[in-house]
Amino acid sequence: MSNKYDTNYIDSILKEYSKDSDEIITSAINYSLFQKGKRLRPLFMLYVNDIFESNHDVLKPFMAAIEMIHTYSLIHDDLPAMDDDNLRRGVKTNHIVFGEANAILAGDGLLNKSIETVMQAFDYKDYTDEVVKASKVLYKCSGIDGMIGGQVLDIYYENKQIENMDEPYEILCDITKKKTSALIVASFKIGAIIGMASDKEIDIMEQVANNVGLAFQIQDDLLDIVGDEKTFGKTIGSDEKNNKSTFASILGVDKCKELVSDLTNEAISLLQSLNKDTKELEDIILGLINREK
Amino acid sequence: MSNKYDTNYIDSILKEYSKDSDEIITSAINYSLFQKGKRLRPLFMLYVNDIFESNHDVLKPFMAAIEMIHTYSLIHDDLPAMDDDNLRRGVKTNHIVFGEANAILAGDGLLNKSIETVMQAFDYKDYTDEVVKASKVLYKCSGIDGMIGGQVLDIYYENKQIENMDEPYEILCDITKKKTSALIVASFKIGAIIGMASDKEIDIMEQVANNVGLAFQIQDDLLDIVGDEKTFGKTIGSDEKNNKSTFASILGVDKCKELVSDLTNEAISLLQSLNKDTKELEDIILGLINREK
Repeated sequence: MSNKYDTNYIDSILKEYSKDSDEIITSAINYSLFQKGKRLRPLFMLYVNDIFESNHDVLKPFMAAIEMIHTYSLIHDDLPAMDDDNLRRGVKTNHIVFGEANAILAGDGLLNKSIETVMQAFDYKDYTDEVVKASKVLYKCSGIDGMIGGQVLDIYYENKQIENMDEPYEILCDITKKKTSALIVASFKIGAIIGMASDKEIDIMEQVANNVGLAFQIQDDLLDIVGDEKTFGKTIGSDEKNNKSTFASILGVDKCKELVSDLTNEAISLLQSLNKDTKELEDIILGLINREK
Repeated sequence: MSNKYDTNYIDSILKEYSKDSDEIITSAINYSLFQKGKRLRPLFMLYVNDIFESNHDVLKPFMAAIEMIHTYSLIHDDLPAMDDDNLRRGVKTNHIVFGEANAILAGDGLLNKSIETVMQAFDYKDYTDEVVKASKVLYKCSGIDGMIGGQVLDIYYENKQIENMDEPYEILCDITKKKTSALIVASFKIGAIIGMASDKEIDIMEQVANNVGLAFQIQDDLLDIVGDEKTFGKTIGSDEKNNKSTFASILGVDKCKELVSDLTNEAISLLQSLNKDTKELEDIILGLINREK
């Protein structure tokens, strides 16, 4: 990932809103929160915000909160009762290190902490309406109609051989829209809302985010097949091991690459329709389809 | 529980902020949310609010949210990795009916839904400052320094024979203050905050709530020993089965009864020091020490 902002900047924001103590729950939370992640969602939020009015002070609590939400979802998804993964971001998963009970509570704690963090944005009293609007978007997208709903579908379809069903592509798109795209949509919309964008502009950012989310997931599936385990940081072939249908398994590698390219081009066109300086965000999006991890 | 307000009223508020659908996650959420609970926390909130200014419209989202938070904590506490309970409020626990993965996600979904619900209180624009203050209290009390932290301690001390440690009573008080009292403190403080109480009055309500929380937990431990399984609604002797030290096991039944009485009397005195009409809240608190379930 490039350029103007990097993951160290996001880490410094996360530290600002985190607790430092030797309590087991704080250790478990910080263990997962400060792994080397791509920090994609807060970075998107920031780059989108810069297209409109750059209100970073008001945005920072949301940047930290969305990474907390993303991290809690990974901790819970990795649990034995869910995807049962031992490796994440290159290291042991939370429940392997801290035990299953603490991992569940660390996830709960992170979601709860995300709210406490968002509440700090209300200190900027000139932005109350925008903070309320952005908070509603965040928790709509992370809830049962968004991210959590996506994980429910993912669990539901496990071992159900989606490729033998009537509309396997549509089913995978539905799962992806909730499980992966919803939080990306949140980051784009919140960046725009706090940047005082118009409703029409916010709508365009939502469309861009949905394209980016789908392209990102298809690329992720491709990397699960062709990636290198050390570079990718999680167990390669874990989808196959878990008997999960993926875009790669139902469409094949070539069709997937074509789709990633089409979705990305459409996203770029939409961005350019804004008639604003969207170059840096375009670079980030283009970087995604060339990533190796 | 008495009188002016009953659990049916709380249920009607919960329905207002809930979703009705045949999706599995909504079924799992509603299964636990609409069991016959005591609705203690929203009822406390309501009775406290009536001591000050009765702003029920602004309070309702908080009443629903705190019951959602309480319910999610029960679902997660009952999981096999935690207390591994099969029976709750007289019926099968969530993971027994919907499976472990859906129970984890139903808990996550309820915590997330609580935030979406609280955000609706911002519709009352004359109360923005109070809604921010009340939201901060709610998620401080439900987080790792409050309720979640209490469950962490509870898990940590399991099978550790607290009664053989140096200060068993202090340890149990510490666990109770976080695990049980924190949400009761939240309900008292939020009732007062939305009722436009002064900071001094809010402080007094916090003290009352800490007494009530401790008395409630000691009474709960007593009922675990002497209660009747059908009346009590959960497995009697489950603390003993789980090898947990309780107030009853370290202090004995008589000392526990004395403590419950002392804590309650002190709470009543504190309330009367407000020089307001606190009679109905006092009745609720007194009802608690005579309860059989």
